[in-house]
Amino acid sequence: MFSKQDFPNMDKFFRRNLINSLSGFKSVNLVGTANKFGETNLAIFSQIFHLGATPALMGMIVRPDVVPRHSLMNILETKYYTFNHIQESFFEKAHQTSARYQVSEFEAIGLTEEYSKNHSAPYVKEANIKMGLKLREKQELAVNKTIFVIGEVQEIILPKDCLLEDGFIDLEKAGTITCSGLDSYHTTQKLTRLTYAKPDKKPNKF
Amino acid sequence: MFSKQDFPNMDKFFRRNLINSLSGFKSVNLVGTANKFGETNLAIFSQIFHLGATPALMGMIVRPDVVPRHSLMNILETKYYTFNHIQESFFEKAHQTSARYQVSEFEAIGLTEEYSKNHSAPYVKEANIKMGLKLREKQELAVNKTIFVIGEVQEIILPKDCLLEDGFIDLEKAGTITCSGLDSYHTTQKLTRLTYAKPDKKPNKF
Repeated sequence: MFSKQDFPNMDKFFRRNLINSLSGFKSVNLVGTANKFGETNLAIFSQIFHLGATPALMGMIVRPDVVPRHSLMNILETKYYTFNHIQESFFEKAHQTSARYQVSEFEAIGLTEEYSKNHSAPYVKEANIKMGLKLREKQELAVNKTIFVIGEVQEIILPKDCLLEDGFIDLEKAGTITCSGLDSYHTTQKLTRLTYAKPDKKPNKF
Repeated sequence: MFSKQDFPNMDKFFRRNLINSLSGFKSVNLVGTANKFGETNLAIFSQIFHLGATPALMGMIVRPDVVPRHSLMNILETKYYTFNHIQESFFEKAHQTSARYQVSEFEAIGLTEEYSKNHSAPYVKEANIKMGLKLREKQELAVNKTIFVIGEVQEIILPKDCLLEDGFIDLEKAGTITCSGLDSYHTTQKLTRLTYAKPDKKPNKF
């Protein structure tokens, strides 16, 4: 057990690992961007979350201490960006995007740019599930100077056989992985889906 | 493939499932609260994310259409709340907290309240990893009227043998599960941890 009083005395790296692990498994994505000259950038983010379905919005937290913050600069410059799910077949390359390269991470680590006709932000060709987003709002959080980026989903690309009749995406079938902490990657194994909860009966598996 | 123009024409439940699945696997937690009379509430939330390590902050999104929003009311009233990781042994009970009960969900579904000496918000005794939080900030997001709640970690409770020397928490050993969409639950299987990425070499597994 740790209490708040322990945090300031912890080794900085110990504290970062501890607090980054603490929320649970995360929605890790590769974020694809380009500047106005078409120079691309690819970066791994794990502070990504669903914000709402109508309109379809996604939130992302950008740390203030990530310098230089090319992804954020490109998003502000062009307004468009992509989220690309990560699969086991390229998770080591995805992790490697966090190194500081002088050239595009696509080129440096060997992932393939792919484009839709609707915007100029690059997708990761190797990713099975991906979406294009348009910047809706950006704010700096007063509590710790992190940047909160809100984007509206413009398009969704996914394998047909991973989409169920009710709209649910079978992420496991698509090979999407998850992460914990700053550096641990995990595949998943489905327990079950559960029916909508009502007070008078147990949920059914399906 | 879907584009933005398709969204308004989708069946409402199809769209909710689709967009809720889209960000990837999520940090699903049970949020424990009490009102000023000590009446407890327990609710499952999957829009939870790490916001920063110094200070140790967690973000949570509360949907505007969840009525009545007891969790949020209690957090605003007492300022304290808990996040409790979910394990396979009680994920069906965790899911069931989303039904509308007239009594405390702890009692209705059969999970056990547990208290620390530092605050009045209830923990879930059955949960291996949990944390107490104090409200730091609450804002309504203009884009979709969701409520963004920021809390500062006050204490962390976890099994000693799940904490590694470098601060990393072995969530898998603790039995923490993840979810996707609105109703699918998954255990995980670790691929590996990867060393800090540097441009001139491949990351090592450890």
